[in-house]
Amino acid sequence: MDNYWIWFFGDFEIYHSMKQNFSREERGYDWPAYWHTDTWNTNVKFIHSYDLDKEESFHVTSRAIGHVKMNGQKFPLNQNIKCSAGHVEIEIIAASMSVLPSVFITGDSIRSDGTWQVSNYLETIPAGFSSLYTDPAFYPDEICFSSETCEPKAINALSGGVLIDFGRMIDGHLNVSFKDDSAAFDLCFGESVAEATDIKWCYYKEEHYSNGKPIRKRAFRYVFIVTASMDDILSISATHQFVDVPVRSSFHSDNKELNKIWDVSVETYRLCSGLFFIDGIKRDRWIWSGDAYQSYFVNPYVFADKEIEERTILALRGNKEIQQHLNTIVDYSLLWVISIEKHMREYADTDFLKSLWPKITAMMAFCEAQKDENGFIIGRPDDWIFIDWAEMDKTGPICAEQVLLYAAYESMSYLCGVMQAENVYVEKSDALKKKINKYYWDDDKGAYIDSFQSGKRHITRHGNIFAVLFRIAGEQRTEQIIRNVLLNEDVAPITTPYFKFFELDALGQIGRFDLIWSQLFSYWGGMLQKGAVTFWEQYDPSVEGNEHYAMYGDPFGKSLCHAWSASPIYFIGRYLIGMQTLAPDSVSLDPHIEFLNQFECVLPIGKYIISFTMLNHKLTITTTMKRGKLYYKDKCYELCRDASLTLDL
Amino acid sequence: MDNYWIWFFGDFEIYHSMKQNFSREERGYDWPAYWHTDTWNTNVKFIHSYDLDKEESFHVTSRAIGHVKMNGQKFPLNQNIKCSAGHVEIEIIAASMSVLPSVFITGDSIRSDGTWQVSNYLETIPAGFSSLYTDPAFYPDEICFSSETCEPKAINALSGGVLIDFGRMIDGHLNVSFKDDSAAFDLCFGESVAEATDIKWCYYKEEHYSNGKPIRKRAFRYVFIVTASMDDILSISATHQFVDVPVRSSFHSDNKELNKIWDVSVETYRLCSGLFFIDGIKRDRWIWSGDAYQSYFVNPYVFADKEIEERTILALRGNKEIQQHLNTIVDYSLLWVISIEKHMREYADTDFLKSLWPKITAMMAFCEAQKDENGFIIGRPDDWIFIDWAEMDKTGPICAEQVLLYAAYESMSYLCGVMQAENVYVEKSDALKKKINKYYWDDDKGAYIDSFQSGKRHITRHGNIFAVLFRIAGEQRTEQIIRNVLLNEDVAPITTPYFKFFELDALGQIGRFDLIWSQLFSYWGGMLQKGAVTFWEQYDPSVEGNEHYAMYGDPFGKSLCHAWSASPIYFIGRYLIGMQTLAPDSVSLDPHIEFLNQFECVLPIGKYIISFTMLNHKLTITTTMKRGKLYYKDKCYELCRDASLTLDL
Repeated sequence: MDNYWIWFFGDFEIYHSMKQNFSREERGYDWPAYWHTDTWNTNVKFIHSYDLDKEESFHVTSRAIGHVKMNGQKFPLNQNIKCSAGHVEIEIIAASMSVLPSVFITGDSIRSDGTWQVSNYLETIPAGFSSLYTDPAFYPDEICFSSETCEPKAINALSGGVLIDFGRMIDGHLNVSFKDDSAAFDLCFGESVAEATDIKWCYYKEEHYSNGKPIRKRAFRYVFIVTASMDDILSISATHQFVDVPVRSSFHSDNKELNKIWDVSVETYRLCSGLFFIDGIKRDRWIWSGDAYQSYFVNPYVFADKEIEERTILALRGNKEIQQHLNTIVDYSLLWVISIEKHMREYADTDFLKSLWPKITAMMAFCEAQKDENGFIIGRPDDWIFIDWAEMDKTGPICAEQVLLYAAYESMSYLCGVMQAENVYVEKSDALKKKINKYYWDDDKGAYIDSFQSGKRHITRHGNIFAVLFRIAGEQRTEQIIRNVLLNEDVAPITTPYFKFFELDALGQIGRFDLIWSQLFSYWGGMLQKGAVTFWEQYDPSVEGNEHYAMYGDPFGKSLCHAWSASPIYFIGRYLIGMQTLAPDSVSLDPHIEFLNQFECVLPIGKYIISFTMLNHKLTITTTMKRGKLYYKDKCYELCRDASLTLDL
Repeated sequence: MDNYWIWFFGDFEIYHSMKQNFSREERGYDWPAYWHTDTWNTNVKFIHSYDLDKEESFHVTSRAIGHVKMNGQKFPLNQNIKCSAGHVEIEIIAASMSVLPSVFITGDSIRSDGTWQVSNYLETIPAGFSSLYTDPAFYPDEICFSSETCEPKAINALSGGVLIDFGRMIDGHLNVSFKDDSAAFDLCFGESVAEATDIKWCYYKEEHYSNGKPIRKRAFRYVFIVTASMDDILSISATHQFVDVPVRSSFHSDNKELNKIWDVSVETYRLCSGLFFIDGIKRDRWIWSGDAYQSYFVNPYVFADKEIEERTILALRGNKEIQQHLNTIVDYSLLWVISIEKHMREYADTDFLKSLWPKITAMMAFCEAQKDENGFIIGRPDDWIFIDWAEMDKTGPICAEQVLLYAAYESMSYLCGVMQAENVYVEKSDALKKKINKYYWDDDKGAYIDSFQSGKRHITRHGNIFAVLFRIAGEQRTEQIIRNVLLNEDVAPITTPYFKFFELDALGQIGRFDLIWSQLFSYWGGMLQKGAVTFWEQYDPSVEGNEHYAMYGDPFGKSLCHAWSASPIYFIGRYLIGMQTLAPDSVSLDPHIEFLNQFECVLPIGKYIISFTMLNHKLTITTTMKRGKLYYKDKCYELCRDASLTLDL
């Protein structure tokens, strides 16, 4: 019988996202995320009733203060309580100013699981729980890290000290001891040699470190021990910490470079996937809705882990009462809504959706309250209409934002269907689509303009890419967009990897796999040629040397291990292998043998996996699913655990 | 130049009220307050700009994580920062999941005080600060306790152990050591001998205490060391902890019993006044709006401390976004609004009012949203329409609640005047007064009925007492109420000390000082005769022996040191001495020499005091105020620091 730690649904994520978003460090100071931070409920009550056939004992483990109320009588926490046969009403009061108020209840029938209700004295809802927290001795205010000891790959004396290369990115603790207990050295960390050896500008520095002092958890590949010599060092290693979300896919083809791109993408992705999808391990270490949105696309091809998405969705959203857009960004709120449809289509967990529903509807109400007379969403003071770091005409309501609102309506329409809730979104999305096409489409230019209010009729790729991705344009206009924008070199190119994801996804949607293929090698292959062991926040082939590490006006401002750069996994999986989950037990397949004529690949589907072996135009498919369906071209094939399927392509 | 710890305005109170409301203990378990608990902002930003004549250094002390941003450049907290002459923009980022994010800034010009702004990334407001926190070495997440060592007044061997009597109530730590380090005894605490020696039913017990173990902070007068003999004890004392709000009044008359009632009231009041006005020191240790409301009336005659009221007002209210009535009780929300008028009339601090204003207006909006078609306030599901523990017809909107709403409108009207804000409340209060008189006044009974909806036309004292206190009835109807309700023994008597306060206040308003006088001796004098060293939550002369300690169906459920029982200070000060503050520098006086023909009394007024000496029908008045006004009968007298005033009464 399942037994879990339980808490106020959503609060685990609020609690730990705060830890996460407060963990950024730069040059000796801390940098908590610069947005409003919701707090967990410090005072809650867990509720359940049972009808017991016989007397039993139960035990409530908790670090909170409070008590157990059983049929009106009160007992302390953390002791055995005897309960007579018959009907029993249990309330567990738990409050804390520092830990997550949570309880673990063990007993024959009386046990903590998702059947408990929890109240914050405002509303009573099903309790939250996680498959990561099933041990009463391991409290949910701690993070369930696994760890791995990493030995240096190289130790070299430099003129100013000793440089240690771990040969890989580490997010954890450095362990170093010197022969002389009284010796003290500065330790400089770096994702690159240049950073570690730049004792002024490296991000992380431990000053005057001597044996036995604690060293803060950091992300690094290199450590430079300033003024030390090889002889000073007694031992050195690092403890990498990670939340063990298993990698359930693999990919191997006859193209070695492509294999490397896959592997380094997986490495990058794993590092940026802890309790939540974060942006990067050195910087920002924050949970950003736009970045997470892209991580959700990669997840089905690596972990297919439902819970990391749930945690990230909840962490981003915070408390039910919403007061600010996610990360202050209007588009990030809309992407959050859209992502829930994607999540549901992938994992179909209606219990989760039901629990999340009040937060979804509150989000939509929040967005609806900031529409103009045309029904277009606009920013309120202090809202950030981001879309991308690009020259864009942001006068009045802008096109790209409206397309996201349309997509959010479409997602809501789908979700209302799942929830069997009243659906006002079909009408809303139809009306908005018409308005967008009326106000933003420019017949002369054959494309959507950024803003109709300014009169400038400026065109960027962004709104047009979204229009393709979210199918707002209709066939004819989409053709025009492809010609006039997507494949038109006169329109300013996408310069950020954030939006490159959407662009490549749009190119995939219109079947331009050749462009995806070439980008994989020029962009990601380019980083590999520069020695990348994880993919960078951004790569510009035109810069030289240490310039690669600079960003935001900072010589080492660039994160060299950044989640959104792991997207080759998605592009390979979705567009080259061409597999897409349609339902928890069915996939569609459209492998592109013009690029990949020989590969072996394992991909997760739900709790199971599907394996593909491609050789000589024959694709052999096996699965651990008992039964499933595979759609290839216009046919549906039965998948079966006990037999492999071979297709002639 | 003043220098303070600063924080997000209101958060100090939210933080510490949580500590306070989570501190209740009963028989081995904790009992956090059973209402929704708002949390402090964990992530804030302090903002200030200066124009410096010359270079200076400043230092930011904080336990939070974050940094200092000065003209765009970032520095760690807790180190000296050099700042060039000229214009400087400073932002201090402070976040914490466990301590109150607060900073103390020291420098020549750059110093933390009320001129700083603070943002929670939703709104930017003036920072909060307190005169209790002016030392950078003493952090505002700690409580600024003073302490006092108390020696036992008596140690007696009983058959089952040793009983220690400290002769007074203590709220603090017991210090005990045994001669034998290996000895362990159970320690039972009690406000009464009966409680301490009842090893099963006493509220607080420390089991198996042996030398060196920490003992939890508790409220007690007696300690019973179970199974110990006098010889086992090496030493015993107690450390009483208190927030040192100075007592600035004294009262001494030729009536010894009255003097004792005053002194024991002051003792009771001080014990229940920490950072906040709480209800009782043993139980509940919570901040209740109704209880605090009565403490505000006593404050001018004991501490005249503005800040304890401000802290309590903020603690009760919580965050700006209001989701639940104070302590879940609709009337307590309304009393909170009314109390702010009282506070302003006493202390006239418009800065505080300005800072509080958004929380006041949000409260009014919250209340306004739950009115019926007549404009009467009604409870929503889970709201508590309390008024009093009494038989009352609570069908539909009830009278007493509407009178409080009317009083809240009247207070808002006054506060809008101070704020120079648009005032919609004159109209609202007029309309509501008419409606109340139309729907609730019963001409036959010559009184207000509880409910008009039930058709029962039931009368209780409560609505009628409020109608007198808040002057809703008009002269004629007030006369009828006095005759038909207040002085009518056929109407069910007030049985709770909570409402007895309002009743006696109403009797004072109608000039029935004789009834106040007799109540002082029968009710409070009665407790003294039972040996009370502090006044009890309730006193019923008709019960005997240990029955006095029982309440709520619990043999020791009664709190023997309860704030609302300190009200004799108010009744003596307000109605017998007859002093009332009219403005920070003026008082009215109406001493009742039929009761008090000889007394010396010191009372605070603002930062100053007024002393009265009454002898042989002559009242001599001195003050430390430079200048002030005293209204007596229909005359206004000038008060002056340098001269005493003598009135022939």
